Amino acid sequence: MALKHDREWDYELERIVDAVKERNATTVGLQFPEGLKRRGPNVVDDLRANLSDGVQVMLSGQPCYGACDLDTYLMRRTDVFVHFGHSPMKDSEKIIYVPLFSNVDVEPILTESLDELADPAADPDVGLVTTAQHMNKFEGMRAWLEDRGYTVHVRRGDDRLTHEGQVLGCNYASAEVDADQILYVGGGKFHPLGLAMEHPQKRVVIADPVNNAVSIADTEKFMKQRYGAVHRAMDAETWGVIFCTKIGQGRWDQAEEIIEANEDAYLITMDEVTPDRLTNFDMDAFVNTGCPRITTDDGPRFKKPMLTPGEYEIAVGEKPLEDLEFDTFHGTW
Amino acid sequence: MALKHDREWDYELERIVDAVKERNATTVGLQFPEGLKRRGPNVVDDLRANLSDGVQVMLSGQPCYGACDLDTYLMRRTDVFVHFGHSPMKDSEKIIYVPLFSNVDVEPILTESLDELADPAADPDVGLVTTAQHMNKFEGMRAWLEDRGYTVHVRRGDDRLTHEGQVLGCNYASAEVDADQILYVGGGKFHPLGLAMEHPQKRVVIADPVNNAVSIADTEKFMKQRYGAVHRAMDAETWGVIFCTKIGQGRWDQAEEIIEANEDAYLITMDEVTPDRLTNFDMDAFVNTGCPRITTDDGPRFKKPMLTPGEYEIAVGEKPLEDLEFDTFHGTW
Repeated sequence: MALKHDREWDYELERIVDAVKERNATTVGLQFPEGLKRRGPNVVDDLRANLSDGVQVMLSGQPCYGACDLDTYLMRRTDVFVHFGHSPMKDSEKIIYVPLFSNVDVEPILTESLDELADPAADPDVGLVTTAQHMNKFEGMRAWLEDRGYTVHVRRGDDRLTHEGQVLGCNYASAEVDADQILYVGGGKFHPLGLAMEHPQKRVVIADPVNNAVSIADTEKFMKQRYGAVHRAMDAETWGVIFCTKIGQGRWDQAEEIIEANEDAYLITMDEVTPDRLTNFDMDAFVNTGCPRITTDDGPRFKKPMLTPGEYEIAVGEKPLEDLEFDTFHGTW
Repeated sequence: MALKHDREWDYELERIVDAVKERNATTVGLQFPEGLKRRGPNVVDDLRANLSDGVQVMLSGQPCYGACDLDTYLMRRTDVFVHFGHSPMKDSEKIIYVPLFSNVDVEPILTESLDELADPAADPDVGLVTTAQHMNKFEGMRAWLEDRGYTVHVRRGDDRLTHEGQVLGCNYASAEVDADQILYVGGGKFHPLGLAMEHPQKRVVIADPVNNAVSIADTEKFMKQRYGAVHRAMDAETWGVIFCTKIGQGRWDQAEEIIEANEDAYLITMDEVTPDRLTNFDMDAFVNTGCPRITTDDGPRFKKPMLTPGEYEIAVGEKPLEDLEFDTFHGTW
């Protein structure tokens, strides 16, 4: 069953229609990540055409940045809830995950990446990682590298990751392999940066099949930005400690630990962590125990220094500056 | 028990401390409206000083624009939940409402308002309304006007309003009184505008005790803006119909009715209704069944026309343009 308006992605309409019929569902909730939200209405059209009139299909208008970020309001109020664009962080009977794999051909960029990888005669060991949207090509990538003489090291990260070789913006455990070089196949700047920060002893080769560019991850600019934020926060007299209420972004123990040890720290709970929402609190600096990407990638947008829990420890003198590292997130919920 | 950092508002610390002790609470959630959020940390300080170490006090970081806008996440996860700055929309054992009355003297502005009110010898009838923050002065205002020869007409609006004479930005039922002139004592532009729109046959005198200014409500600019939005939406082929998930802002029947009658309408659920969130949906126009203030006061900030349910009926030809009226909200949840 193809989506009439768009043939590039497989929305797995049949699976959704089957689930609706099996459960005699009268309400269906659809959640898309930001970049795919505009396709939502067309998916609704196709579902309406295949479902009886009594079924109400709803689109989540909440921002969505990952499988950690389920619209629990809509999920709890619909008989079938479909989360598009991410692989499951945790399986649930309630949720249908539709991964929406990219159909871009990765072979050209793999060929180009050979210029940056060590010659297999000199160092055959290479770690291979990718993001959820290219996961359908993972076995092909592995075979392609093996055909060219590489020993490909892959592993599944931890609970937070569904697939062998998969990385998230907040979790690079799948790159903990016995190889000095890692090939990251995927787009974006944040994932390979996190990968390089989390595994500083490895050379990270970025093969971006969408923008058709190969490069080497460089953490210098990122490190400078983070050192800058930590230094600015060192004079802070009051701290806002953010506990994120999104289902897969809560680290309560970390938040509580900071609050208990620092009488000038205040616990603030919220789902979306944005500059506007924090402006209203009169705090000198913030620690975000939620999504690490918000803290670092969005960091410069905040009016006050915004630190990760590890950076906070440095700013208040509990750890030396050299201990600065990338904030990663483990486990589910 | 006074707040050490601020003597202008009564945060009713004693009442909160008593409730914590009575319930053996270990968690306390505090929710402030946007304009008072910066006072939150000082209230936490004072509570910490009066509560045992084991009690965790949390601040809601969610935006808050009214008693309709409770942080239900924090409310459900704390033993004592305090909502500051609004009067109760619905009583609940779970919630402590702290109204935070303004201590501004209203007599000078009442004196000034006499220039705009009819002479009591000619027309003694005047309706009196105000907002939650000046409610503590309501009886004084009424007596002051009566002393000057006026017959003051007051009533309690409907379920959504706690007090006699109180108006909300979305509910002006308390002005349905037998008088041709209404005296509104309070700040802001939106409340008196809604009042004048909702009661077009009455003269609305605005007495703003904070900015010390008396004026007459003028709906012309507002009407032009709304007619403009309706006209621009008349060509819309696709409609996003917003159902707001905030506890006191949901009008499900209205949303469902539109969806059922229009196959080019798509139901979108969200809590905060912002331009950014809607940009991601490829819709020609939107109907907001949630907070009327977002639709009208924030209207110009949205990239596509944003209509109230009544305006939608005009745009799709179900009602004539002359039927355009202010969107009001009744009932609780």
